[in-house]
Amino acid sequence: MAKQFPIANSNRHIHLSAADIETLFGAGYELTHMKDLSQPGQFACTEVLDIKGPKGVVSKVRVLGPARKQSQVEVLVADTFKLGVPAVIRDSGKLEGTPGCTLVGPCGEVELTEGVIVAARHIHMHTTDAEKFGLKDGDIVNVEVPGDRGVIFKNVLVRASDSYALEMHIDTEEGNGAGVKNGMIVSIVE
Amino acid sequence: MAKQFPIANSNRHIHLSAADIETLFGAGYELTHMKDLSQPGQFACTEVLDIKGPKGVVSKVRVLGPARKQSQVEVLVADTFKLGVPAVIRDSGKLEGTPGCTLVGPCGEVELTEGVIVAARHIHMHTTDAEKFGLKDGDIVNVEVPGDRGVIFKNVLVRASDSYALEMHIDTEEGNGAGVKNGMIVSIVE
Repeated sequence: MAKQFPIANSNRHIHLSAADIETLFGAGYELTHMKDLSQPGQFACTEVLDIKGPKGVVSKVRVLGPARKQSQVEVLVADTFKLGVPAVIRDSGKLEGTPGCTLVGPCGEVELTEGVIVAARHIHMHTTDAEKFGLKDGDIVNVEVPGDRGVIFKNVLVRASDSYALEMHIDTEEGNGAGVKNGMIVSIVE
Repeated sequence: MAKQFPIANSNRHIHLSAADIETLFGAGYELTHMKDLSQPGQFACTEVLDIKGPKGVVSKVRVLGPARKQSQVEVLVADTFKLGVPAVIRDSGKLEGTPGCTLVGPCGEVELTEGVIVAARHIHMHTTDAEKFGLKDGDIVNVEVPGDRGVIFKNVLVRASDSYALEMHIDTEEGNGAGVKNGMIVSIVE
């Protein structure tokens, strides 16, 4: 059975804790829904923030909602050079030992002691998709992208949950380097 | 026999014709050598130019020397979005049908009707390296990059000549997306 699904490029973005939203945008502030994302309940916001590192700033980075338990800043490797922080490849939510940064909002700044990551490539799957593919949450697979700039991505994490929709996520550097257009169909290979 | 060699990331850069150097920098101008590149005779210059497209500008792009027969502008896919030109993946020197741009220098501007490319991934090999590997100029191979962000690059062009040194070239989006550090050793795979 062909193990196929759409792939999408994620640009740099920021997830915020409820407390950090208030510090950056003011007491009682709520994020402004701009558009739904492919994963159920997730949305892009109209809000943007500047990310400040020891060497430089990356400006106008999109905030995604809803609020999370801990703020998380997902950047590109090129951004880590500009910011002056190490490029640490991590799964979402696994922030121990990652670099920090300063987030600059219209009403205040937040000093994060950790949370700046380059997101590890992964496939969101509903539990029923994972079962159909003979896979489970936490598995590592290889995924082939077709085309002139075709690649096989290795070390791709399977993230299976009843709250996920079937889609592979890579960042825009991985996507541009592999000629990926959002919605392109890719396949798990041996 | 292991078919191995170092790999390096190329950032956006510009090759200029002798005529375009004079238009951009003034009559009789000669490019200023900053540092040698890995390929014999090639060098980075102190000179930088702005690239102007229908939608936007990419600033301070490094010029490489020596002068070539035709100007060639090598950009990243992300740059093509900013400039507003199609991302056309091409081998160096094969510029027919590629988009143009305006180059902006300190003494003038040049309108290129073609020459803006996203460079196709390739391996420079001395003819003796190619023979040793059982390959020839124009062959297409797959190359594996090890590591957390490991990939297999498909459609990699072999460029063999007596004037080349053994090294694979990708652009910084491909490199960042694959966790490549300059000088990392990679391998041809089936």
